[in-house]
Amino acid sequence: MREVAVIGVGMTRFGKFLERSLKDLSKEATEAALSHAGVDKSAIQAAFVGNSAAGLITGQEAIRGQTVLMNMGIQHIPIINVENACASASTAFHLGWMMIASGMYDIVLALGMEKMHHEDKSRTFQALASGFDVDVVKWVMSMMTKEAGKETEEKGEQGKSRSIFMDAYAMRARGHVQKYGTTKEQFAKVSAKNHYNGSLNPYAQYQTPYTLEEVLNSRLIVEPLTLYMCSPIGDGAAAAILCSKELAYKYTTKPVFVAASVLGSGGLSPDPVFSYTTEMTSGKAYEMAGIGPEDIDVLEVHDAAAPGELIAYEELGLCPHGEGGRLIDEGQTKITGKIPVNTSGGLESKGHPIGATGLAQLAEIVWQLRGEADKRQVKEGKALVGMTHNAGGVMGNDEAAIAIHILRR
Amino acid sequence: MREVAVIGVGMTRFGKFLERSLKDLSKEATEAALSHAGVDKSAIQAAFVGNSAAGLITGQEAIRGQTVLMNMGIQHIPIINVENACASASTAFHLGWMMIASGMYDIVLALGMEKMHHEDKSRTFQALASGFDVDVVKWVMSMMTKEAGKETEEKGEQGKSRSIFMDAYAMRARGHVQKYGTTKEQFAKVSAKNHYNGSLNPYAQYQTPYTLEEVLNSRLIVEPLTLYMCSPIGDGAAAAILCSKELAYKYTTKPVFVAASVLGSGGLSPDPVFSYTTEMTSGKAYEMAGIGPEDIDVLEVHDAAAPGELIAYEELGLCPHGEGGRLIDEGQTKITGKIPVNTSGGLESKGHPIGATGLAQLAEIVWQLRGEADKRQVKEGKALVGMTHNAGGVMGNDEAAIAIHILRR
Repeated sequence: MREVAVIGVGMTRFGKFLERSLKDLSKEATEAALSHAGVDKSAIQAAFVGNSAAGLITGQEAIRGQTVLMNMGIQHIPIINVENACASASTAFHLGWMMIASGMYDIVLALGMEKMHHEDKSRTFQALASGFDVDVVKWVMSMMTKEAGKETEEKGEQGKSRSIFMDAYAMRARGHVQKYGTTKEQFAKVSAKNHYNGSLNPYAQYQTPYTLEEVLNSRLIVEPLTLYMCSPIGDGAAAAILCSKELAYKYTTKPVFVAASVLGSGGLSPDPVFSYTTEMTSGKAYEMAGIGPEDIDVLEVHDAAAPGELIAYEELGLCPHGEGGRLIDEGQTKITGKIPVNTSGGLESKGHPIGATGLAQLAEIVWQLRGEADKRQVKEGKALVGMTHNAGGVMGNDEAAIAIHILRR
Repeated sequence: MREVAVIGVGMTRFGKFLERSLKDLSKEATEAALSHAGVDKSAIQAAFVGNSAAGLITGQEAIRGQTVLMNMGIQHIPIINVENACASASTAFHLGWMMIASGMYDIVLALGMEKMHHEDKSRTFQALASGFDVDVVKWVMSMMTKEAGKETEEKGEQGKSRSIFMDAYAMRARGHVQKYGTTKEQFAKVSAKNHYNGSLNPYAQYQTPYTLEEVLNSRLIVEPLTLYMCSPIGDGAAAAILCSKELAYKYTTKPVFVAASVLGSGGLSPDPVFSYTTEMTSGKAYEMAGIGPEDIDVLEVHDAAAPGELIAYEELGLCPHGEGGRLIDEGQTKITGKIPVNTSGGLESKGHPIGATGLAQLAEIVWQLRGEADKRQVKEGKALVGMTHNAGGVMGNDEAAIAIHILRR
């Protein structure tokens, strides 16, 4: 297989944009990536478009990518629409990588886009619940309302759907606390770090540097998660231009290469705290790249809630199981630390328009490796290797999708 | 790139199955394909799942493939959900092919599944309208109702959505009539042929051999299309097992190889009758396979309405532009003809659960090339090369997705 380079990335600011369409958001992100790459849109040979919720939010259930690309004059190329819940954009990137690695195409667009906000909030709740098996969600809801001694009310069901992902994260967090003595303060330190990083990122949805105390004192969502430990609902888009190694140097003196691209899906995990799929896919990614966790200079991980990041330290092998709390206490994952994590602000601060998140993570790593991360720049621009960890949905008791990417200069 | 084989295919009967879930339909099709291949599900290394409408029909907007595969005990492998309107299943097959051709995996599952029927018919209409840019559909609807001097009524909008695809086919058909003198009888002959073929296919939704007169006398949908010239709404699933050439002979003495797999999307077509994208992608497919239209022994084409098949004869190069009518008059595309087309009954008679159709077409070609097509068998089982043409949605004034596959023994 051929070596594949990322030659340009771009994204919109993430946020609440009721007035902006998917077409509008996607155009901005794609044009930014094309401009970063110095590539004209006519050079793109195929496009992979990740999105998870448009069918429910905008009504564009089918041909989502076609409608946004036609709008910006990109036509007559193969367009493939890809879905993998919160890992949709990384999955699009994975396919784009494969198409170039195999020799099928020389230059492709990977685009991730999402609108989660809608005036009718029940649509957003439905989209979030859909990251689980909806038959299971319905059954759980019916059991819960039965227990509470009342019939399911539409309103109650929606309210519950909103936090169902946070319930899942909270359960894993409580398991970690019980097993390793991890504290709520340690989770909160993750959030304070990420909100500080987000305050340096012009693309972040929230740019307020909350202190540890502010995180701990924000509204309780579900023990041990407070509001500032949870990723918000968001709208946005992110894109990348990938091409063959040979072609890359025609466009840039700073290509970033894909050292590993691995996708996995869950099922029954033997441990309720750790994701078997994350450990398996990251193991394969290290093997594909021929490196270990000690070689990673900078990381974006899937902190849909703060404990997700702390546990990911352990799943990805940055430290042994149970030592994530120590890593955050020692400040090792700060921008100035030994192994900076979520310099972008992560999902908690940068935001989490689910179908765009994976490519926003990849964009941050590309900027870091090219020395273009401005106030968030790690290691004086000398970082060589970066990694992304993007998770989506629930399958069995594990992630429905895990995408691990390792990029290198 | 490595050679890729199809070693097993399977499908459910297509039809109206309000009581059956996507899980149930997918399980039947996947187990049939595994059994045909002689492969245990534990051997599958990755899965590509095509579906177009579940978000609207069942509410499973995200991780559709994960929910159905978990249900049949397939877990811990990469699962990628793919959407391309009526070409979703062929797109899944295309990705599966690429993953093996590139050397990434050795054996994969491609699955297409769809439920179009729902007790609330407005959901089906919404799903069909979603094969177009919904912003454009809304705009057209508002213009039409403005013209009619009344406000858009929800009911009227839904009624219109139902036939919007048929309107598009009818417009192309009328263009063909005007330009080449093609007759309504010639379109009806396509349908009579396909309904006869469908009567021989136990998987077909409709198994009644309508005569030419019955087709012409069935209810008018939109000139020149009568009811029996249009594909019905349907539910169903179809699957294929793909593997590397080396592995194929371990499982079967009758592997079928993928000689070409090409995907394209539309835009602005210079001709309102012919799909530029179909002509371009089929041209690329012939080039990839190193053959021409004269080498094709058996074909499944996208007859969502009868004129689609007649025009496809010309787009795919079976005959020059304007001679499709002659081909059907001469009976060349019958099961007993020189170049049999839609031996399965096609979308008109076999049915068209949109996200399953592409794999059902591929299944028919695999059966034909293996000599397993029973009463529909062409050329005494000696056919060497088959082709599928699967179209999906509308982009600009062309198809939003075209997938062309050439299979050979």
